[in-house]
Amino acid sequence: MAVARLGPSTYGLDGVYLRAGAAAVGPHEGRGPLGPFFDRVWSDETNGTPSFEKAEQALLTDAYALLLKKAEVQWSEVDLVFGGDLLDQIVTTTFTARDHQRPLIGVFAACASFTEALGLGSLVIGGGGSHTVLAAASSHHFSAERQFRFPLELGYQRPPTAAWTATAAGAAMLGDQPSSVWIEAVTFGRVIDMGGKDPNDMGSAMAPAAFDTIQRHFAATNTRPDDYDAIMTGDLGHFGIAVLRHYAQDQGLTFGDELDDCGRSLYDPVRQDTHNGGSGPGCSAAVFCGPLLRALQAGEMQRLLLVATGALFSPTTYQQGETIPAIAHAVAFSRQEVT
Amino acid sequence: MAVARLGPSTYGLDGVYLRAGAAAVGPHEGRGPLGPFFDRVWSDETNGTPSFEKAEQALLTDAYALLLKKAEVQWSEVDLVFGGDLLDQIVTTTFTARDHQRPLIGVFAACASFTEALGLGSLVIGGGGSHTVLAAASSHHFSAERQFRFPLELGYQRPPTAAWTATAAGAAMLGDQPSSVWIEAVTFGRVIDMGGKDPNDMGSAMAPAAFDTIQRHFAATNTRPDDYDAIMTGDLGHFGIAVLRHYAQDQGLTFGDELDDCGRSLYDPVRQDTHNGGSGPGCSAAVFCGPLLRALQAGEMQRLLLVATGALFSPTTYQQGETIPAIAHAVAFSRQEVT
Repeated sequence: MAVARLGPSTYGLDGVYLRAGAAAVGPHEGRGPLGPFFDRVWSDETNGTPSFEKAEQALLTDAYALLLKKAEVQWSEVDLVFGGDLLDQIVTTTFTARDHQRPLIGVFAACASFTEALGLGSLVIGGGGSHTVLAAASSHHFSAERQFRFPLELGYQRPPTAAWTATAAGAAMLGDQPSSVWIEAVTFGRVIDMGGKDPNDMGSAMAPAAFDTIQRHFAATNTRPDDYDAIMTGDLGHFGIAVLRHYAQDQGLTFGDELDDCGRSLYDPVRQDTHNGGSGPGCSAAVFCGPLLRALQAGEMQRLLLVATGALFSPTTYQQGETIPAIAHAVAFSRQEVT
Repeated sequence: MAVARLGPSTYGLDGVYLRAGAAAVGPHEGRGPLGPFFDRVWSDETNGTPSFEKAEQALLTDAYALLLKKAEVQWSEVDLVFGGDLLDQIVTTTFTARDHQRPLIGVFAACASFTEALGLGSLVIGGGGSHTVLAAASSHHFSAERQFRFPLELGYQRPPTAAWTATAAGAAMLGDQPSSVWIEAVTFGRVIDMGGKDPNDMGSAMAPAAFDTIQRHFAATNTRPDDYDAIMTGDLGHFGIAVLRHYAQDQGLTFGDELDDCGRSLYDPVRQDTHNGGSGPGCSAAVFCGPLLRALQAGEMQRLLLVATGALFSPTTYQQGETIPAIAHAVAFSRQEVT
C-alpha cells in the first residue's frame, strides 16, 4: 500500500481495493430505471418502523447486512466505519453504530458525504493504518423533507428545480486485499459559494463546486474527461448538470458523453415526478454501490470518476438569509483483472 | 512518517508533529481559571456580529488566524482542514471554509469532534498523504443552547448535572516537520449507549464511552494510567468524571491524580455558575490548544492523553424518546527536545 500526494488535496493510491458494495432503497427508487441493480428494494417507505428517522436507520442497517454478506466479512474484521447522513447530528450514522459496535468516524459533507467517507477510508488503508474499512451514506425522503423544508403531509408544491431526496443507503467495503476494482486517486474539495440562496435549486449551487474539484483532480492526476468511461456527479440533477457543462465550457473544459449525474439517473423523468432528480447522501452512495459498481465489476466500465456533491446549508442559515455553500469530493476507480 | 496498526482502531504514529495550537474563547471562559492561557478572550458573546451563529463563525475564524500566525504558516500551505462543530449540518465549520478556501473534511462526533479531526489528520500525515493539516473544533453557548435545549432568553432553570456549552474555538496545526510535541498514537472510539435519556446529564452518558476508548488505547499501546502525566477527558464534568472513576474501578482499572477533565477545568465551580462544567466541541479543543499544549511545550508535561467525549443525540431523537449514544476518540501526545 502507498499514498502519493499528487496535489494539495489529491492523493494517488496503491493497493487500496473495493471488495464489495451494497445498496438498499425505497419503493420510489426501486421503480426507477436503476431499480433492478439495487440489492434490496423496500415495498414501502417505513418497512414497519415507527418513524421516518427509524426507517432511515433500518435502511442503512439493511445496506450494512447486505454488504457484509457480499464481502464475506464479519463485523469483527472491520477496523473502522466511515459514514454520514443528512439528519441533524448525523443520527442515522451514529444510532446504527450502537448495533455494529465498530469504531466510528462520523463525517459530514451533506450529499458529498459518501465520497468523503470513501476517500478518507482509502487514505487510511493506503497509509498502512487499516486492513478493512466500511464507508457508507444514507438518506430518507420523508425524514429529510420534514427537517429541511416542510413535512410532506403539508402537500406543498415543489418548483421544477427542486431535488427529490432519495430514500437510499449505500455501503462499500474497502480493503488491502486485491480485487477487481481498486481506488486510483482521491481529491477532496473546497467550499465554493457562488451566492445562490434557493434551497430548491441546489443543483445550480453545487455545479461550480463540482467543477472546481473535477478540474483540480484532472490537473493533479494529469487526466482529462475522455480518460474516464464515466464521470458521475452526485446530485446536480437535470438543471445542475447543464449548469456544470456550460460553466466548464466557459472555463475551457469540454465534457463529452462520459459526464452524467447519479441524481438524474435515479428516477424516470417522465413516469416519476421528481423534477430535478434525486439528491441526498444516499443517492450517490446507492447509485455507486448498486449499478455503477456492478458495471465496473462486470468490465462494462474500466475507469470511473465519482464526484458526490453537497449543499452545505441548514434550515437556520437559510432562514437567516445566508447563501448556500457547496462542496464536492472525488474518488477515481479502476478495474483490473485479478491475477 | 509511518503508521502502525496497533489494534483494530489504534494507530501508532511516527513523524507526525504538532506545530502550534491557538484558542479563542468567550468572556465567561476568559474569566475562568484557564483564562490567562487562551490566545484571545472576547469581551462579549457576539463581538459585534449580528447573530450567535455568526459569532461562532467569527470565533473559529479568530482561532484560525491566531494559529496561522503562531505556526508561521500561510493558508496556501495547508493541505486539508479537518473540523466539526455542534450546529446542525456543522455550518460553523462549512461557512468559515468559504473564506479560507482550503479543502475541507467535515467531521461530526459532537463534543468529540476535535480528537476525531486531530486523529484523522495525524493518520493522513503519517500515511504520507499530507505535509500540513489543520484540525479544529468550535462551539458557542448561545447558538448551542437555543438549538439543543431552549433559547437562553427563556431563563429556564438548569439542573445540577447540566453542562455549560463553552463559547470556545481551538485549532491545531499538524505537520511532518519536527517540533517539540509529537502525536504518538490515536484510538478511535465505538458508540456506547448505556440507556441514559437525560440531555441534561451527558457526563454520565459519556463516561462509559470514555472508559471503553481509554481501555482499548491502553491495551493496544501497552500503557497504563500512570504512564501519562495527564489523561484529560473532554467534557464529562464534575459528575461524569466521578462516574468514570467508579465505573473504571469496577472494571479493574484505577486512575490516579493524572485523570482530569477539560470541562471541569474550564470554569470556577464556586465563582461561576456552570453546574457540571463546560462542554461543546470547542471545550476540549480550546483547553488543549491553550493551557494543555502550553504545558507540553514548556516541558511541564511529557506525555498527555486527550480523550474528547461526545453525546450523539439530536433534539429530534430526544423528543422521540431515544436514549443518548456516546463516543470518545483519544489522541496521545509526547514531548521531546527538538534536535
